[in-house]
Amino acid sequence: MSLLVVGSVALDSVETPFGLKEDVLGGSATYFSTSASFFAPTQVVAVVGEDFPQAHLDFLKARGVDLEGVTREKGRTFRWKGRYGFQLNEAETLDTQLNVFQSFSPRLPEKYRDAQYVFLGNIHPELQSQVVDQVKAPKLVAADTMNFWINGSRPALLKTLKRVNLLFVNDGEARQLTGEHNIVRAARAILDMGPQRVVIKRGEYGALLFEKEHTFACPAMPIADVFDPTGAGDTFAGGFMGTLAIASQVNTETLRRAMVMGSVMASFTVEKFSLERLREVTRSEIRARFSDFKRLTHFEDLGPLEG
Amino acid sequence: MSLLVVGSVALDSVETPFGLKEDVLGGSATYFSTSASFFAPTQVVAVVGEDFPQAHLDFLKARGVDLEGVTREKGRTFRWKGRYGFQLNEAETLDTQLNVFQSFSPRLPEKYRDAQYVFLGNIHPELQSQVVDQVKAPKLVAADTMNFWINGSRPALLKTLKRVNLLFVNDGEARQLTGEHNIVRAARAILDMGPQRVVIKRGEYGALLFEKEHTFACPAMPIADVFDPTGAGDTFAGGFMGTLAIASQVNTETLRRAMVMGSVMASFTVEKFSLERLREVTRSEIRARFSDFKRLTHFEDLGPLEG
Repeated sequence: MSLLVVGSVALDSVETPFGLKEDVLGGSATYFSTSASFFAPTQVVAVVGEDFPQAHLDFLKARGVDLEGVTREKGRTFRWKGRYGFQLNEAETLDTQLNVFQSFSPRLPEKYRDAQYVFLGNIHPELQSQVVDQVKAPKLVAADTMNFWINGSRPALLKTLKRVNLLFVNDGEARQLTGEHNIVRAARAILDMGPQRVVIKRGEYGALLFEKEHTFACPAMPIADVFDPTGAGDTFAGGFMGTLAIASQVNTETLRRAMVMGSVMASFTVEKFSLERLREVTRSEIRARFSDFKRLTHFEDLGPLEG
Repeated sequence: MSLLVVGSVALDSVETPFGLKEDVLGGSATYFSTSASFFAPTQVVAVVGEDFPQAHLDFLKARGVDLEGVTREKGRTFRWKGRYGFQLNEAETLDTQLNVFQSFSPRLPEKYRDAQYVFLGNIHPELQSQVVDQVKAPKLVAADTMNFWINGSRPALLKTLKRVNLLFVNDGEARQLTGEHNIVRAARAILDMGPQRVVIKRGEYGALLFEKEHTFACPAMPIADVFDPTGAGDTFAGGFMGTLAIASQVNTETLRRAMVMGSVMASFTVEKFSLERLREVTRSEIRARFSDFKRLTHFEDLGPLEG
């Protein structure tokens, strides 16, 4: 049940209609591992710069996250700056400074090589492939990607996809990757590229899980106060993979529960800036929101149809 | 359990990437009553012109729809012409000819005045109000509206909303009506305007039902071959109101089942042009797709959370 994530640990500056936060904790591996840590011990491979506050690493450690794979290099930490409008759906990237992330080459500590569940965060597909090379016998390899790689590194991405069991993408990325506008056709095309499962994230509209034989639709929790959607996708993936890692097997039922738990965790993240809400959320709040999802989606079987 | 609909019976010309159909059967009351007729006897108040093919009326009659309230006036039938791009989400209206609909003033035949369930299709809010005046003791009055009335006839619409128990709107209309971008806040604001329930339609993303105390999220069936989304919203409302009309009471459970049946019926409509799919669909196909929705949304309760 060991869970490994490779991705960014970053300092974000985020502007929303509700305020501006500068150099706050961010990064795909950060959101993922914090979210997953509520369910399974999580190992992180990432790089930070000399300026990265020790307090952030201490926070992750306190959550039980294994940071042996996080190296501190000469230079500044990866920085992302973005802005959201009132729609709070898509960020406008104002600035990206790769810094130490520029020369990131993921090297797994020996004990990480036994990881059974692997999440390849949104890094260059060749680096994602290098991670798979280093893992001995994973039960499930999941990956995220983005428009930048779909356009710019397509051959490498297609190669990586052949080694991936489950792909997380948003609907725009799924369309871009496959050239299919219809989301069912796009999902089927992705399943033909290698992964046995694909999760299509649709922001406030929820997410779809496509398997060869089954489809699962998971709504997003309707939230009246969305403050900052940054990290929602990685938080989703963390809740998903964390739940899956503690399940006895990977099947339709455990994958569906993982989808709901991903949505549960993401619904907390968006309620405050950065990881503020994930820092304070409790297991009993998580359980309660899982039950809220049951109520949100429950309907009775059909009675007789009279006319 | 008598169900009444007031709306348009029209001739549509629709262009999609898959073809062009001219002067085919359309109109809100047509889609609504055909969809509802699978569940409950439905009475229609509408107007057609001299050119309206008798065969279309015969089709509705054969489905058990009561057409006593449909009058044939001098002049041409209401015509709508629209075009969809590959996204198939929103129609671009190319032409609207009101024709006999221009002077439409809904008058209910005496027996219609006992209707218990009433659907006010998307007509001028003052006409909607006139319909409510004529119904003796309705159990539930539902209404649809659109941006045209929200912008152009706001005071009349707000007056009508005070007499409506349930409003169907899409998310854009909900935002426009309330000035709230967040959909939860928009729904709450609508509940403050009069209706006890609001259904927010989100096209391929499904629909949300907001009550004071409960929220229900219903996905749309993922469909690989969407041909023509015209009438999907009215088909949804027809399946919804038809199912509700045969339920013994209006409560959270019956409303949720109505939401799913609305989605079931709409998922058929979009598979072919005009009412072609609704013409041929069978009760057993309807039942089977309702079960598909169960499978699409089903997930197991949460087991122990270990970490």
